[in-house]
Amino acid sequence: MLRIITQQADVRSELQRICDRTQDEQVLHKEATVREVLQAVKRQGDKAVLHYTAEFDHQILKAEELKVTGSELDAAYQQVSKDLLQAIRLACQKIEAFHSQRVPKSWVQFGDDEVVLGKRYTPVDRAGLYIPGGRACYPSTVLMNAIPAKVAGVPRVVMVTPVRGGKMVNPAVLVAAQEAGIQEIYRVGGAQAIAALAYGTETIPKVNVITGPGNIYVTLAKKLVYGTVGIDSLAGPSEVLVIADETANPAYVAADLLAQAEHDPMAAAILLTTDAGLAKKVQMAVERQLVDHPRRIDTEKAIAHYGLIVVVESLAAAAELSNEFAPEHLELEVADPWALMNQIRHAGAIFLGSSTPEAVGDYLAGPNHTLPTSGAARYASALGVETFLKHSSIIQYSQTALEKVASAIDILATTEGLPSHADSVKLRVED
Amino acid sequence: MLRIITQQADVRSELQRICDRTQDEQVLHKEATVREVLQAVKRQGDKAVLHYTAEFDHQILKAEELKVTGSELDAAYQQVSKDLLQAIRLACQKIEAFHSQRVPKSWVQFGDDEVVLGKRYTPVDRAGLYIPGGRACYPSTVLMNAIPAKVAGVPRVVMVTPVRGGKMVNPAVLVAAQEAGIQEIYRVGGAQAIAALAYGTETIPKVNVITGPGNIYVTLAKKLVYGTVGIDSLAGPSEVLVIADETANPAYVAADLLAQAEHDPMAAAILLTTDAGLAKKVQMAVERQLVDHPRRIDTEKAIAHYGLIVVVESLAAAAELSNEFAPEHLELEVADPWALMNQIRHAGAIFLGSSTPEAVGDYLAGPNHTLPTSGAARYASALGVETFLKHSSIIQYSQTALEKVASAIDILATTEGLPSHADSVKLRVED
Repeated sequence: MLRIITQQADVRSELQRICDRTQDEQVLHKEATVREVLQAVKRQGDKAVLHYTAEFDHQILKAEELKVTGSELDAAYQQVSKDLLQAIRLACQKIEAFHSQRVPKSWVQFGDDEVVLGKRYTPVDRAGLYIPGGRACYPSTVLMNAIPAKVAGVPRVVMVTPVRGGKMVNPAVLVAAQEAGIQEIYRVGGAQAIAALAYGTETIPKVNVITGPGNIYVTLAKKLVYGTVGIDSLAGPSEVLVIADETANPAYVAADLLAQAEHDPMAAAILLTTDAGLAKKVQMAVERQLVDHPRRIDTEKAIAHYGLIVVVESLAAAAELSNEFAPEHLELEVADPWALMNQIRHAGAIFLGSSTPEAVGDYLAGPNHTLPTSGAARYASALGVETFLKHSSIIQYSQTALEKVASAIDILATTEGLPSHADSVKLRVED
Repeated sequence: MLRIITQQADVRSELQRICDRTQDEQVLHKEATVREVLQAVKRQGDKAVLHYTAEFDHQILKAEELKVTGSELDAAYQQVSKDLLQAIRLACQKIEAFHSQRVPKSWVQFGDDEVVLGKRYTPVDRAGLYIPGGRACYPSTVLMNAIPAKVAGVPRVVMVTPVRGGKMVNPAVLVAAQEAGIQEIYRVGGAQAIAALAYGTETIPKVNVITGPGNIYVTLAKKLVYGTVGIDSLAGPSEVLVIADETANPAYVAADLLAQAEHDPMAAAILLTTDAGLAKKVQMAVERQLVDHPRRIDTEKAIAHYGLIVVVESLAAAAELSNEFAPEHLELEVADPWALMNQIRHAGAIFLGSSTPEAVGDYLAGPNHTLPTSGAARYASALGVETFLKHSSIIQYSQTALEKVASAIDILATTEGLPSHADSVKLRVED
């Protein structure tokens, strides 16, 4: 049963507990395992990748079986329905349209005395996308990772994804990859896949940036290889926070909460509402919608442990609690969502109004569904084209321009005790 | 003596060795210490901060002495020369002007069927800047970290910096902080300072983003707290790569190489030149300039271990070697630097032409001097206003718009095995 509490109760500590829900995992113990995997793959390449794939994923593969073949890629199109292909293409088009907007462009400015300053944007040479697999099948995750890389102009994008049983990658995933322009796919997952992308093996190329969600081992591996490569973020379990007033439809709110809870027993689903009546109705609607839910057990676990309804005194109070929680997904199911949005400082994505369920953003509205979790929205943003771009600062001074700043540089360098810094300017000016 | 090799020699493995120069430090052992410090500060707050400051920095402080007082801030202005103050103000103004350009702004677009999409940019609530201290004094580092945070609109920016001896923070650092708008400064450094900023103590506030360079303990602490807070990057020792042709002035090139080497015995200074004569002249100029160098021993160490001149066959070959190294600083001291820049894919900052020593960028050209090191320029960029900003995606669908995409979402959600995702749309459409 989804719990209801009032703002008088210890709401803040409850929200904190939910926000920190991943921290009591036995991270240090798992980290030792991940370190071993990283070191082994770094030293032994494919051999270690195949060893851990057998050990952890129970897949006996040869090195030459790692790469998905052209015929497997072709065959995938025969295995998905026309409707699914059309839906993937619609999502592709909308995601690409959104991500193509406001992409940072190189620029220079010309100042006095022939000073030229600017930024030159370039894509990374190679990107590696991690797509969860095994029992799961997430074509939407493929699109959300691959399309920004393509829009950024990354010349080589490779994908890794684990397999189970028949060694075949899910055809929907293969079709999504190809629709997003990816042909180079390796059937490997877990920390060994992250290690292969970070260090390179005989078969799998070393990349510069690794993106995509995974389990705790994948996330720990990403954290440990950060610095050797760039990463998008450290993804935790998903979460939604809904702010609703008396105008909200309880069945919609309940479905949106369950749409989050069904991801994972660790998912969080929170409703802040000014209407105690709505709170009760949502609670009942959740119970009703859970009855025939195909993922009932896991979904109920998430609702029981990390589900919460808080009856708040005002929308302003709701906004403040939401800012403290900094949710990955924030739904504003209130009469005037735009007014309320002005009070929101931290959220990965904001869904406005009662006709905008989170699912529309998960699949095809356009903005990325890879969003900061566990409070990271306080400092981080969605995955985007910028994840695959970087820039070089550009500086050109003329002799005249250098002369004008020479004495300022001299005193600053001298203050910092760096004489050659000062000399490098003096030599040029005194010549 | 600065070594000269030709491209026939094993240039790539030499450059790789230099790029990887920090990896053989005893990181794992140090990480255990850092973990202990982080845990202790998280649990015991100020008490642990003061304990480790006594243990590592030999400073016996009370909690109430951590914060720099108003009178100490005021007094700093009396302790710096008028020339230094003017130089700091000039740098401030140029850095702010550059960083104020092309700051990402919030936007929305209005599509068909009342679809609204956009991005809403907001600053982090609190930022923490780490400024190295003790024997060193880096007012330029203060400006380069503080000004982007201020331009981003961060409401509360705090600074931490270690002290030695008299417990006083260097007045140039205090003046730079105030000129950049920072008044809240704590005299603490090392991993304990990073821990205090990440978790908060009775005296030092918890922040959302930590930026700034430090030693290996500070860098390891930043890596470990990443995820709890955002960080700018994992800074390694500094490096410059100069590409020069026969038009370059050997004395200038030598000074620029030494300006890098004087930072740190681990700093790297590399010259790629098409002119064997220049190589020899630079080698001699380095020797000459080292004779009276006040930091001769450390600077010679850097030159001996991580200094290198490579005589290359062509500028194109130099550009490709540079791209593989991905230097923090790249100087193009060639006849046509703009033509050569087109071949550069990875570099933190690019200095064009012979009147643009790196020092101009280090202090006051405007672009940030906090740049990706150790090959991180393959995927990362300078510290900037974006380091202190994040955005929320904005999505609003109308009922009509939702109806048009309902079947596509249905098939995607069903393929992914997420029934409540599908239901959250179906319920709204069927109503």
